[in-house]
Amino acid sequence: MDYTKFFSDDVPSFMRSPVREIFRKVDLSAIYSFAGGYPDAATFPMDDIRRLSAAVLEKYGAKALQYGATQGVPELRKVISERYGVPVENVQVTTSSQQGIDVCTRIMVNPGDVVLTTSPTYLGALQSFKSYRADVRTLDGGEPDWSRVRFFYAIPDFQNPSGETMTLAQRQELVALAREKDFIIVEDSPYRELRYEGEPVPSIYSLAPERTLHQGSFSKIFAPGFRLGWILGPQDLLEQIYICKQALDLCPPVFDQYMAAEFMGSGALDANLQKSIALYRGKRDLMLSLLQKHMPEGVSWTHPEGGLFLFLTLPESIDTVALYDKALAAGVAYVAGSFFYVDGSHRNTMRMNFSFLDKERMEPGIRLLADIIKGEQA
Amino acid sequence: MDYTKFFSDDVPSFMRSPVREIFRKVDLSAIYSFAGGYPDAATFPMDDIRRLSAAVLEKYGAKALQYGATQGVPELRKVISERYGVPVENVQVTTSSQQGIDVCTRIMVNPGDVVLTTSPTYLGALQSFKSYRADVRTLDGGEPDWSRVRFFYAIPDFQNPSGETMTLAQRQELVALAREKDFIIVEDSPYRELRYEGEPVPSIYSLAPERTLHQGSFSKIFAPGFRLGWILGPQDLLEQIYICKQALDLCPPVFDQYMAAEFMGSGALDANLQKSIALYRGKRDLMLSLLQKHMPEGVSWTHPEGGLFLFLTLPESIDTVALYDKALAAGVAYVAGSFFYVDGSHRNTMRMNFSFLDKERMEPGIRLLADIIKGEQA
Repeated sequence: MDYTKFFSDDVPSFMRSPVREIFRKVDLSAIYSFAGGYPDAATFPMDDIRRLSAAVLEKYGAKALQYGATQGVPELRKVISERYGVPVENVQVTTSSQQGIDVCTRIMVNPGDVVLTTSPTYLGALQSFKSYRADVRTLDGGEPDWSRVRFFYAIPDFQNPSGETMTLAQRQELVALAREKDFIIVEDSPYRELRYEGEPVPSIYSLAPERTLHQGSFSKIFAPGFRLGWILGPQDLLEQIYICKQALDLCPPVFDQYMAAEFMGSGALDANLQKSIALYRGKRDLMLSLLQKHMPEGVSWTHPEGGLFLFLTLPESIDTVALYDKALAAGVAYVAGSFFYVDGSHRNTMRMNFSFLDKERMEPGIRLLADIIKGEQA
Repeated sequence: MDYTKFFSDDVPSFMRSPVREIFRKVDLSAIYSFAGGYPDAATFPMDDIRRLSAAVLEKYGAKALQYGATQGVPELRKVISERYGVPVENVQVTTSSQQGIDVCTRIMVNPGDVVLTTSPTYLGALQSFKSYRADVRTLDGGEPDWSRVRFFYAIPDFQNPSGETMTLAQRQELVALAREKDFIIVEDSPYRELRYEGEPVPSIYSLAPERTLHQGSFSKIFAPGFRLGWILGPQDLLEQIYICKQALDLCPPVFDQYMAAEFMGSGALDANLQKSIALYRGKRDLMLSLLQKHMPEGVSWTHPEGGLFLFLTLPESIDTVALYDKALAAGVAYVAGSFFYVDGSHRNTMRMNFSFLDKERMEPGIRLLADIIKGEQA
């Protein structure tokens, strides 16, 4: 039976995530994987989670297992509101920040509307934008038709995939442009609290709360198995997100929300964050030193001040998409950088995750990858 | 600042759930609520959940807290596959069956495409269909343009809101029509396992697995605070749902999935189900007898063989939408039946939930509602 005739006009624009496709086929534990954006399981606060899962059932009882409010349970909204200094009315809990990106696109974008972003940018966001047939553009190629621009999507802190952070001046410039040309900014900031050096830069939301939808995530500060994020934004926009979310999934996972509320509301999150930051700083430093040690000349990389990724640029003659199967067969995985480019360019780049792989496995993994790259150069 | 200019063309078609709006404003515990579709908290297997939350962390460790596969974790897909006798490849786990309905609509419906359903039908499904600007129709008003019909949405078992169950002949007739006119059937069956009398009728999926997307839910057999459902369907359709779901939320809640897998895979679900069925049967019988005792002449109701709802028809002169504020002020809540009708008709009907309210509060609630109705007749 041929099902294609039943598909909506959006379906041909659906993009598969090459990252998720890798995970579908490969046993990650059997290879050196720099591919995913997985946190290190050592950062999951197992003792807290064990303690809290009992405490949540004790404290909230059936309420933690019943349907909850579409906006999120009041206890979690309050804790988020207090941590980030934002009124409760400006907080919407999401079933992951991926859902946050998706629902923002859903309420703002018609087929053909322009979504601006940087290039490279987060693949999961590209998937969402394209699934609504947005015209995804950067500002590099000249001025867009401003009347069709709905929002600019930015990952200002330790960007996925580049690892780079927008300066305050760059944020202010973006805000000024948004005010001049009258568009919304979707600020995706799942790694903001994972800073390993330097001073935090004010969020775009803090600079332009009237036109920013700020996406937060529990995946990197708690555990991604609890599918939870949040949006901070103007009430008039959150109201449409709230109505849309009723039809999407009624409410975010309730037990998960009480777990997150107790974790964030107590000192447990901050204590765990200190440990995560120390662990990830060490891993980043190790990867930087291993790249220095093993990579041949002509390979360069970014120096992220936080987050989970750095970005490699290889000699132009090397195609990382073509190289991928060879690397995987040899036992090492990365994500080709071109997947993060709106136009699929930069085929000589790759995203490297330094959070997931155990420290002791990092050197053989980097050495293997360096050898493969050297083989291409020979 | 005026945000309406940023909204997509879908937004004006968003419907607020009157049920969720009630919950936003009213403290449910302070009134007699027949309004929601909430399970009785007494059916939540608290002891199992306490035991399982510790056991899941022990057995699966960090895997229960990490990102998971978009299709659902293999352990849960396997258990669902075994329980319902369907290959694992035909099982997609969803972040609630509401998401299941939404994603089916997303992959099949363009603005103006026809979605067929019964009238009345589930409000949350109407919200989803309308949010994609579907042309929602019933077969009562004559033949639709068959070339625009994408799917028929049915709730064959103990329907929400009517409480009625499709006979085998009706299911066979629907399947024959679907095959003749070439459309898909979305079978929504969250209450299927909550049968209080009579024999189960074969699912539509079992009659036409090649063109049915069957929606299951853990909300009524486990707990709705875990946002989990599943879709059984043809692989070619599930494949597009899988790709779409990557952009929607990456994966269903992982800890919740392991909880559900352990609960369903052990005998715990079936043991708990027996208790839930006994409890709900008693509540249904009580409501039926209380309606008999208190309702004035000219009021009739359905006799559900299972599920959570029955449907009241009042004399035509009584408008339950208009009556609603008066009832709420007096301390009793229902959902006006017309919200479940595609055309907003049947303003003399109401949906009554018998699962949520404590048994001892049911008589004063029904008496109060009966008095209000009698007052309208006077």
